Amino acid sequence: MLKKGISASKGYAIGRVVIKKEQELNVVEKKVEDIVAEKQRLKDAAEASREQLTKIKEKAEREVGKDKAAVFESHMMLLDDPEFTGAIEMNIESSSVNAEKALKDVVDMYMGIFAAMEDEYMRERAADVKDVGDRILKNLLGVTSGDLSDIEENTVVVAHDLTPSDTAQLDKSKVIAFLTNIGGRTSHSAIMARTLEIPAVVGLQNITEEVKDGDLVIVDGIEGIVEINPSEEIIKAYEDKKAKFQGEQEELRKLISVETVTKAGKRVEVVGNIGKPEDVHQVIENGGDGVGLFRTEFLYMDRNDMPTEEEQFESYKYVAEKLEGKPVVIRTLDIGGDKKLPYLPLPEEMNPFLGYRAIRLCLDRKDIFKVQLRALLRASAYGNIKIMFPMISSVSEFLEAKKVLNECMEELKAEGKEFNANLEVGMMVEIPAAAVAADEFAKHADFFSIGTNDLIQYTLAADRMNEKISYLYDPMHPAVLALIKNTIDAAHRAGKWCGMCGEVAGDERVIPLLVEYDLDEFSMSATSILKAKQIIMETEVL
Amino acid sequence: MLKKGISASKGYAIGRVVIKKEQELNVVEKKVEDIVAEKQRLKDAAEASREQLTKIKEKAEREVGKDKAAVFESHMMLLDDPEFTGAIEMNIESSSVNAEKALKDVVDMYMGIFAAMEDEYMRERAADVKDVGDRILKNLLGVTSGDLSDIEENTVVVAHDLTPSDTAQLDKSKVIAFLTNIGGRTSHSAIMARTLEIPAVVGLQNITEEVKDGDLVIVDGIEGIVEINPSEEIIKAYEDKKAKFQGEQEELRKLISVETVTKAGKRVEVVGNIGKPEDVHQVIENGGDGVGLFRTEFLYMDRNDMPTEEEQFESYKYVAEKLEGKPVVIRTLDIGGDKKLPYLPLPEEMNPFLGYRAIRLCLDRKDIFKVQLRALLRASAYGNIKIMFPMISSVSEFLEAKKVLNECMEELKAEGKEFNANLEVGMMVEIPAAAVAADEFAKHADFFSIGTNDLIQYTLAADRMNEKISYLYDPMHPAVLALIKNTIDAAHRAGKWCGMCGEVAGDERVIPLLVEYDLDEFSMSATSILKAKQIIMETEVL
Repeated sequence: MLKKGISASKGYAIGRVVIKKEQELNVVEKKVEDIVAEKQRLKDAAEASREQLTKIKEKAEREVGKDKAAVFESHMMLLDDPEFTGAIEMNIESSSVNAEKALKDVVDMYMGIFAAMEDEYMRERAADVKDVGDRILKNLLGVTSGDLSDIEENTVVVAHDLTPSDTAQLDKSKVIAFLTNIGGRTSHSAIMARTLEIPAVVGLQNITEEVKDGDLVIVDGIEGIVEINPSEEIIKAYEDKKAKFQGEQEELRKLISVETVTKAGKRVEVVGNIGKPEDVHQVIENGGDGVGLFRTEFLYMDRNDMPTEEEQFESYKYVAEKLEGKPVVIRTLDIGGDKKLPYLPLPEEMNPFLGYRAIRLCLDRKDIFKVQLRALLRASAYGNIKIMFPMISSVSEFLEAKKVLNECMEELKAEGKEFNANLEVGMMVEIPAAAVAADEFAKHADFFSIGTNDLIQYTLAADRMNEKISYLYDPMHPAVLALIKNTIDAAHRAGKWCGMCGEVAGDERVIPLLVEYDLDEFSMSATSILKAKQIIMETEVL
Repeated sequence: MLKKGISASKGYAIGRVVIKKEQELNVVEKKVEDIVAEKQRLKDAAEASREQLTKIKEKAEREVGKDKAAVFESHMMLLDDPEFTGAIEMNIESSSVNAEKALKDVVDMYMGIFAAMEDEYMRERAADVKDVGDRILKNLLGVTSGDLSDIEENTVVVAHDLTPSDTAQLDKSKVIAFLTNIGGRTSHSAIMARTLEIPAVVGLQNITEEVKDGDLVIVDGIEGIVEINPSEEIIKAYEDKKAKFQGEQEELRKLISVETVTKAGKRVEVVGNIGKPEDVHQVIENGGDGVGLFRTEFLYMDRNDMPTEEEQFESYKYVAEKLEGKPVVIRTLDIGGDKKLPYLPLPEEMNPFLGYRAIRLCLDRKDIFKVQLRALLRASAYGNIKIMFPMISSVSEFLEAKKVLNECMEELKAEGKEFNANLEVGMMVEIPAAAVAADEFAKHADFFSIGTNDLIQYTLAADRMNEKISYLYDPMHPAVLALIKNTIDAAHRAGKWCGMCGEVAGDERVIPLLVEYDLDEFSMSATSILKAKQIIMETEVL
């Protein structure tokens, strides 16, 4: 039998099903009399959760390394977050309800906030909150998790959904694919599958009911297809496909240390987008020429106050040093609009995407901006750091941002602190005005990086997160292509380079056109780098 | 003494102050026991309000004509609106509060909704709601209004603010200027002053306290200045300015029937923007060559159901006939986003300006769209009607809209109904994609009209209603100018004409540049037409 879902991670797998048993977590609302006792129940469940997380974290650190175990650090921080646990306690008190109901309401509220966010990293946080919430709930209800630690080789894990805790507990040497009922390309399980480089199909709706433990399944992560108990013929066909795919993967891996040169003889950079310092390793492992976009928002999240200059300096320095001279383009804080910080109150806006955010906020709050710029400058002494300003719409904004940067340079000089006085300072081209008047901006910026997600959104006046009109969001719209071309040409006319860090830069269908347009740098998720290198090298330039 | 405010209507006046006394309308919240009696109090006050409004409306019809008295029709409709009065009754019942408090809460909510809207016509509705609310409140409290019906000649009315009822009761032959504490250029009192063509300064903060009845004041509606009890010298200076201004106005009035021709010998159209059918008279009186933008949203508002084809037909026919062959460009429904209809539920959106609205909604709701298109087509048999689609971002959208129009033509033909089969069908250029790829659109559209308000907003990714970033909204941004120029050039390359109906078209500082860019049609508020004609004719073209 064949089932169609959403392709979440490429590749083929043929193996036996192990279904992750879901404990029904039914929350029944009850009125409680003894508020103190109910709050104690919550505290006990949180304490039990903390002990479990400590063990999972230790196991994850041993098995997949400290970087990837960091997610459990943030789970434990959520347990300690007075905003989170305080809200649950308040809820018990004000509504005289049981801890289960109070917990559920707070978790639902948090998830609603995170799930509505545009940024993939932010949306991923919804899964974290759910994971922690379910853990506390299980401890309140006294149920235990379906155990996946004891499985055989060649196992295809089938689950309603997979949480970060679930994936951490898997034995990675034995799991060869994931299948889930829910989720899309950016759900936690999809991201995890791509990180582990095993095929996955998500959004299969009721796959947990259509297979049973021990069933043989074929997972086609390219077409998003699952074959349940297939015929010998089908197995044979997929074994051939799998061998071919693995051969291609082998070919791609040969490109890891190859410099990317187009048929016209031009050297282009294929680099990675990262959101956390430790993500740099995957970029390096996949043959990236550096980092084309380091989003710095994550340093500001999951905490109760602004990160200090010292903390930021350590993060930027870490990435710069790991890259050993390869470039890292660090984008200054792009907060505001849909991305909010608990410790930075912002006005409610009718149209946050057209509002007070990114460079607009930073130029208004130079106290916040300068801490980051000082950290960036100091880290520039340890590697090839380039600074990039987001949401630039006028030349005067860019010049004002550079002025603040120069002030920081003067301060550091006076303090006798080292930095690279010649570091490149560029800007995102993501607002139509910047793309239209790119020649003006190219006089001042050392480089451009085209942010296609926002550029398309503004150029077409279509919020791509709005389901009613997301059909309008079209990277191949002639106006979008004209703006991309104009931006690249303007950079070159001024003797500058132009990159791209939006989703389009890693889109296999669009890459040949971008080669044709003479784009200098392609920045994308780490796992897309090798395929992009191959396409760029094979594209015939007219 | 000199006071500075906001210039709301041009011209000079020298006269004596009459202060409009404000009755303090203090609402004290009280708990009530007898809900039925409290609801009866509300009903009685509403009934008294209705009687007063009937009298005011009759007076207004006699004095300023039926068209301008229509505002009181809509006040009376609000009194009859079950959404409005029903909400107040519900509030009395659910909160057991007095009618005054229940009324105030509902009025505040309504005003909040209207005041936040982008469209001037919609914001004006906030003043209407306040006016009706205050009237009911006065009847509940048993206070009478400050009477302005018995005043002498050369009176300068000074008020905290002026409501539609206030202005209707004024003796127009005696009032020579308005001064108000609050308001901006788009407040009701400002719009009314421009309609009456008398000078006004608004936003003077505490002018009601700084002058007393009988004070001599000079009102400088150009600089937004008030001189209180000025010296002979100042009076003399302003008498000269006033004479000069009146001379200029005389000169301008000579242009009413003059065709506008640039120094380069090109005939351009200077036309008006209207929101209601009766607004066409002011355009004709001010020498407009027609109507460049008839916003049709108003036909859909102030009611509980969709306007029928017949009702719309009558409105469009009225305007077309009054223009006696001069063109009227009618824009199809631009609803959604911030502009909502009580009888058309729309999804809540995170970024309504980038959302489901205008042509996007109409193509999704062809049932609504076709009623309007049929009415427009039928009216086209009675004058020079051109149809314009708003928010076009792709050629396929334009073609789909034309397809629906063609379906309507086929239907009418089958029904034997008359229409102009050759009427021009154009589009707004207000989304950056349309301006960038204007050559593509010009192949299909019969004309363009550039909507600068939205075009600037999207091009700079800056919501101009958002105070934190409205400084970014700049009509002279090089990217905005480049897009305007490209749109005009693309139209001409395809042998089509290009107009402009955003605020910039009537901006005296920008008009010379638009003449230089070879714009064919300038559409603006009626009172700006004569000055624009003069500037266009005087501009030296390089």
